[in-house]
Amino acid sequence: MEFDRIIYNGTVITVNSDFEIIKDGVVGFKDGVIHLVESRKKDITLYDAGEIIDAQGGIVMPGLINAHVHLPMSIFRGLADDLPLAQWLNEYIFPAEQKYISRQTVRIGTLLSCAEMIMSGTTTCCDGYFYEDAVAAAVLETGLRAVLAQGVIDFPAPGVPDPLKNVEAATVFVKQWKNRSSLITPSIFCHSPYTCSTDTLKKAKQAADLLGVLFQIHVAETKQEVEQIQEMHGISPVKYLDSLGVINGNTLISHAVWLDEEDMDVLAGRNARIAHCPESNMKLASGVAPIPDMIETGICVGLGTDGCASNNNLDLFVEMDSAAKLHKVVKGDPTVMDAKTVIKMATIKGAKAIGLGDIIGSLEPGKQADIIIIDTQKPHLTPMYHPESHVVYAVNGADVSDVFVSGKPLVRNYLPINLDVNEIMRQAGSVGLAIKQMTAS
Amino acid sequence: MEFDRIIYNGTVITVNSDFEIIKDGVVGFKDGVIHLVESRKKDITLYDAGEIIDAQGGIVMPGLINAHVHLPMSIFRGLADDLPLAQWLNEYIFPAEQKYISRQTVRIGTLLSCAEMIMSGTTTCCDGYFYEDAVAAAVLETGLRAVLAQGVIDFPAPGVPDPLKNVEAATVFVKQWKNRSSLITPSIFCHSPYTCSTDTLKKAKQAADLLGVLFQIHVAETKQEVEQIQEMHGISPVKYLDSLGVINGNTLISHAVWLDEEDMDVLAGRNARIAHCPESNMKLASGVAPIPDMIETGICVGLGTDGCASNNNLDLFVEMDSAAKLHKVVKGDPTVMDAKTVIKMATIKGAKAIGLGDIIGSLEPGKQADIIIIDTQKPHLTPMYHPESHVVYAVNGADVSDVFVSGKPLVRNYLPINLDVNEIMRQAGSVGLAIKQMTAS
Repeated sequence: MEFDRIIYNGTVITVNSDFEIIKDGVVGFKDGVIHLVESRKKDITLYDAGEIIDAQGGIVMPGLINAHVHLPMSIFRGLADDLPLAQWLNEYIFPAEQKYISRQTVRIGTLLSCAEMIMSGTTTCCDGYFYEDAVAAAVLETGLRAVLAQGVIDFPAPGVPDPLKNVEAATVFVKQWKNRSSLITPSIFCHSPYTCSTDTLKKAKQAADLLGVLFQIHVAETKQEVEQIQEMHGISPVKYLDSLGVINGNTLISHAVWLDEEDMDVLAGRNARIAHCPESNMKLASGVAPIPDMIETGICVGLGTDGCASNNNLDLFVEMDSAAKLHKVVKGDPTVMDAKTVIKMATIKGAKAIGLGDIIGSLEPGKQADIIIIDTQKPHLTPMYHPESHVVYAVNGADVSDVFVSGKPLVRNYLPINLDVNEIMRQAGSVGLAIKQMTAS
Repeated sequence: MEFDRIIYNGTVITVNSDFEIIKDGVVGFKDGVIHLVESRKKDITLYDAGEIIDAQGGIVMPGLINAHVHLPMSIFRGLADDLPLAQWLNEYIFPAEQKYISRQTVRIGTLLSCAEMIMSGTTTCCDGYFYEDAVAAAVLETGLRAVLAQGVIDFPAPGVPDPLKNVEAATVFVKQWKNRSSLITPSIFCHSPYTCSTDTLKKAKQAADLLGVLFQIHVAETKQEVEQIQEMHGISPVKYLDSLGVINGNTLISHAVWLDEEDMDVLAGRNARIAHCPESNMKLASGVAPIPDMIETGICVGLGTDGCASNNNLDLFVEMDSAAKLHKVVKGDPTVMDAKTVIKMATIKGAKAIGLGDIIGSLEPGKQADIIIIDTQKPHLTPMYHPESHVVYAVNGADVSDVFVSGKPLVRNYLPINLDVNEIMRQAGSVGLAIKQMTAS
């Protein structure tokens, strides 16, 4: 077979079911699909390929998967920090969203987030926001893979002034984007059980199931939310949502911080998926999700950054580091969340969590060629005993030199291909300036 | 005055007592000393300087200070992770140290750590290890500023086979390096209250006080240590050390994880300084030090990475991020450890903690020109509302473009000056290969 490209001279972290790590590995792909993952058996010039890429002793692995993000919110990065949640939301984020979220700023914020993700090794993300058609159009330009959902909330929202039409707007978005691009998978995102009525939640989930798409929702992010739902409905958020039929194998629950054992049993029993966002949960002081327990129960957990306003970056390598370390110290056990478990969260488990486990998340023949190369010729990545340890505990996004999505190069030798990053930053800077003037006044 | 160099067109985070942030700032220095920090008042060409450096809209701030590190241990980076502390130490770190720590490997590990620190914006570190004369010679080559201490432990140690001579060896080191270079400040480092006898602790502290140097020690890192000292001496590690006269204003206590209120009163009353190492404490599951409480009590707290074997990098920007977020979630309060507090830990408080508060830690006239420039022309640093927020929550070490120590350039436009990083990595890689073969067999 003639491959479009072959990558060699790297340590390949396959993330296949045996978590095979191939020291002098070769990865070959053609027409966007991986056809070869093996230990190099012959001189590299004997492989037949359009291009032969030298990974220079680095790490070759699946592109990372950000299981929960709000792409347009990058324009609010660092707008307000270190504040109580209510003040942060009510005095900064909500007013800024109300005044500055438009189809145009959503486009700019999305391009900015995509530029950041591409340059830090993330090849797929799962987003929920408003003006999602503008998000989708922007993501499509960048070449990233994404699951994208129009937000549903029972308040007037950007682009959806009448909350009575929120589920309809989400449905229209799904229909518009279904089968439009192999890289864009539409989805529906209900904000939360405390911002959506019982009726809205049921209607939105029914629509998602009818359309055969992923249903996303923030659940049990804060203790206050749990208390509020408990007071309103007499049961926990998870049990409340389950009673509405909202939780099943096509439901992605973000955060899931405040769960009791019964909640976990419900999630496991329904085969629900979780997007864990440790840095956002830490920064907002929301709490620590019981992730090691969930994983032990067999629940599928992916890793997300959440939006830039509460992180404040989209670097999944640093997020992996935080995930690994946070749970060790909270559990008082350095053996939990080992490097392999955490890499799986950011790759194959994330893929499964967002419904794309069959096509991405590992380097295996038949899977999409979503591949990154990590340049390990750096002091902070020297020496290298265990590549999986470096990925979690020492690499950061700036070490990613090459990125491919569906076999197409998005970054080569640190330079983004076909993306005018300077122009994106210029436009995002202008939006930031306007917002800054608003908050200063 | 004719300056050697002037940096302009950046936002200057001074970390002076008012934490002044100067938007279009100018920093001028001559003969290694800062003489000018002001808002630009005239055309930059009207300033008289040998070189005028354009920060290109980036952030100009004091070089970061790593208050606790073991430089040579970078050769063990990622050798073993995700293990119980005792197994990690006894099966990996101690055997590797016993077999592979020599004057030569100490030199290579130190150069590797210095390369990493220089390239990620750290200009000063505080180290304790063995063969410290080899550490000092290596640091001197790199141009970094450092407080360096020969380790004291009541076991046969690298270079000190007879524990009875450990305090003597530390004293010899201090005498050799006192006044040898303005960049190297010698110190004495007792490993801990559980690895040094009462007699050793007293003798080492007396020697440090007599020589007028900083005394460093690991204290209350783990719960097991506290229980052990409690069992042996009937009191907590802090109170035990205080009873020996070991704790005073020239004592730097690393970790300080397991403290009760009385311990904190002792530390505050004695004016002791703390080196907080959140990522190491997280990774080893040691616990969470009560840092917000200590700061409230007025205790001076700096920030350290600890050695590379338990982190696994020396990036103080990511360490700041972890410090800020960890305490928020543990305290359940997003307002603790705000960005300014955390930046102070990594700069002026760190400087004070290691005894150099008068000469470094802030950009003010009269202080040493230890200065870094952060390149903010990156998607993940766009837009910029608050530079201090970016420094803590979005920047990582790879964003540092320029580094000066005592006015001397160590990194310009991302390239290390006068340091053969490739050769250092080659040598460290060779050492790593030998260690890998040992652990594999």
